[in-house]
Amino acid sequence: MKKVAVIGAGSWGTALSIVLADHKHEVNVWSHRQEQVNEINERNTNQRYLPNIQLSEHIVAYSKMEEAVKGTDAVLLVVPTKAIREVSQQLKPFLDPNKMIIHASKGIEPETHKRISEMLEDELGEQVHQQLVVLSGPSHAEEVALRQPTTITATSYNLKMAELTQDLFMNENFRVYTNEDVLGVEIGGALKNIIALGAGISDGLGYGDNAKSALITRGLAEIARLGTSLDANPLTFAGLAGVGDLIVTCTSKHSRNWRAGNMLGKGYVLQDVLDQMGMVVEGVRTTKAAYQLSRKLNIDMPITEGLYELLFDEKEPKKVVDELMNRGKTKELEDLSSFL
Amino acid sequence: MKKVAVIGAGSWGTALSIVLADHKHEVNVWSHRQEQVNEINERNTNQRYLPNIQLSEHIVAYSKMEEAVKGTDAVLLVVPTKAIREVSQQLKPFLDPNKMIIHASKGIEPETHKRISEMLEDELGEQVHQQLVVLSGPSHAEEVALRQPTTITATSYNLKMAELTQDLFMNENFRVYTNEDVLGVEIGGALKNIIALGAGISDGLGYGDNAKSALITRGLAEIARLGTSLDANPLTFAGLAGVGDLIVTCTSKHSRNWRAGNMLGKGYVLQDVLDQMGMVVEGVRTTKAAYQLSRKLNIDMPITEGLYELLFDEKEPKKVVDELMNRGKTKELEDLSSFL
Repeated sequence: MKKVAVIGAGSWGTALSIVLADHKHEVNVWSHRQEQVNEINERNTNQRYLPNIQLSEHIVAYSKMEEAVKGTDAVLLVVPTKAIREVSQQLKPFLDPNKMIIHASKGIEPETHKRISEMLEDELGEQVHQQLVVLSGPSHAEEVALRQPTTITATSYNLKMAELTQDLFMNENFRVYTNEDVLGVEIGGALKNIIALGAGISDGLGYGDNAKSALITRGLAEIARLGTSLDANPLTFAGLAGVGDLIVTCTSKHSRNWRAGNMLGKGYVLQDVLDQMGMVVEGVRTTKAAYQLSRKLNIDMPITEGLYELLFDEKEPKKVVDELMNRGKTKELEDLSSFL
Repeated sequence: MKKVAVIGAGSWGTALSIVLADHKHEVNVWSHRQEQVNEINERNTNQRYLPNIQLSEHIVAYSKMEEAVKGTDAVLLVVPTKAIREVSQQLKPFLDPNKMIIHASKGIEPETHKRISEMLEDELGEQVHQQLVVLSGPSHAEEVALRQPTTITATSYNLKMAELTQDLFMNENFRVYTNEDVLGVEIGGALKNIIALGAGISDGLGYGDNAKSALITRGLAEIARLGTSLDANPLTFAGLAGVGDLIVTCTSKHSRNWRAGNMLGKGYVLQDVLDQMGMVVEGVRTTKAAYQLSRKLNIDMPITEGLYELLFDEKEPKKVVDELMNRGKTKELEDLSSFL
């Protein structure tokens, strides 16, 4: 039995707390919202993020970071990308050199183009490099909370840390695979949200499964193209944190980024969509970051570029999708060759 | 304007006839069922296979092979895998050396383990090798008939033939990409039906999108493993005829193989499922062929093996899926390395 601090009580943080508690670990959940802390401790629920799910009494919530982190073996960060730096600063005084730092966030920071683990090293110090682990894969929180079969990767520069994370989480419904390609896993996890927006837009426009599948296939090639140019292992994009996560995010009714895209495709404007969602839509900020990065590195990313124009330059959704369908390239394998 | 014979008037043959007729080609459809020939010619419909779709008057049906094929520039074969040899024998007397031979069938023959193009060379003679083209990609017939955006590959040993096929079909809703990896495209198109059966079974058991996405991801690796061992280009499996077709077949409500799997997952026995479907379920025969091939070549194909045991040895669906979820491997990239 271990003691784990889960920083962030959204749907994914809560679902991962359930996995840990099923494994008989003690789980301290941190939230900055006192009413959420009270709900978890008094009623063992988190209705806004995981409706109708009963939480174990071994999941205890705290609003003070120090209390949540004290005496734990590992810290699991599950906050939106834009909160990573601020939360890390709050966390820093309570870390010690032996604590494993796992994150399950998916995004890239606009302007700096940094991945989550790079932001963590900025804020917590370079010495955490070998302590960091990324959890990523096709895993809707709602299904994990219901103990539906799920597979995921635990990725670290330090294989021993990935294996410790595997031991921490793995059970018969929640399979954990180790991987050592931190860069590839973080790029895959972040950029799939862009393609999910696009898939939602295609569906929102009334296009069918053929169109969506084409978009996902080309999206995978585009993600792999950026990732391998940054030195990711191409195999990562053929795995759970690549194509696996892409499929689930683009085709599942649970996906927030798909739902946001679907509204955009139906003609809603971005701000209305974000207001209605009530949860963070990572794909919007990630589109900006990936677009900037593709320009800087001179990588061809037509879907990301089209989405950027739609989100930030008010280009018509139908025009974006139709242009993607009618690009000039016609030899398939030439187009894919930068995949590998 | 060209004249094309479409051999087979199922849903896919009829949908491809619509694409050709939209392009102002003359289309001769062959069917061995006289009542279907009459329906197409008298009412311009094919209700059993494409309900509520009005066909062009430029699509004319024939029950005599000679009449259908006479004077055409190209022959498009769209019949079930098990009918390929018999139909080719009927076709042979009416072929001439300049006629392009396109096929859009997806399967592998049990016992011989031959692909469609190999069966065509057996029956029509080796001299057709350079005339053969394969059409494959994520393309549900129902959506193509409605002119929904669709992408597909035209693949030939002879790039010129692939380009002629591209010209024959391509329009703004139907994008055709050329490819030269006949083996990879045929393997991808055939084996995705096995994974679609598995995806249907997972859904039929009540498992969620996380489980299905894991199955598709591992399925892709398994298909690529077999394909590359036979000398396919690994990039093909990252493209439209690989991951693209796999996604659409495993996640779309139109997919026959998914629907058959779904009924198996809900506890129906194989013969009842086949009786109720009323159309060919290619995945069942392909599972047998791929299983035999994997044994012969000593390739690890756990999903295919599990499906084989379920279909032909009456193993419980839940047992098959649970065993797949609980296999021993835990380092993800080692498992994927045979992908490339």
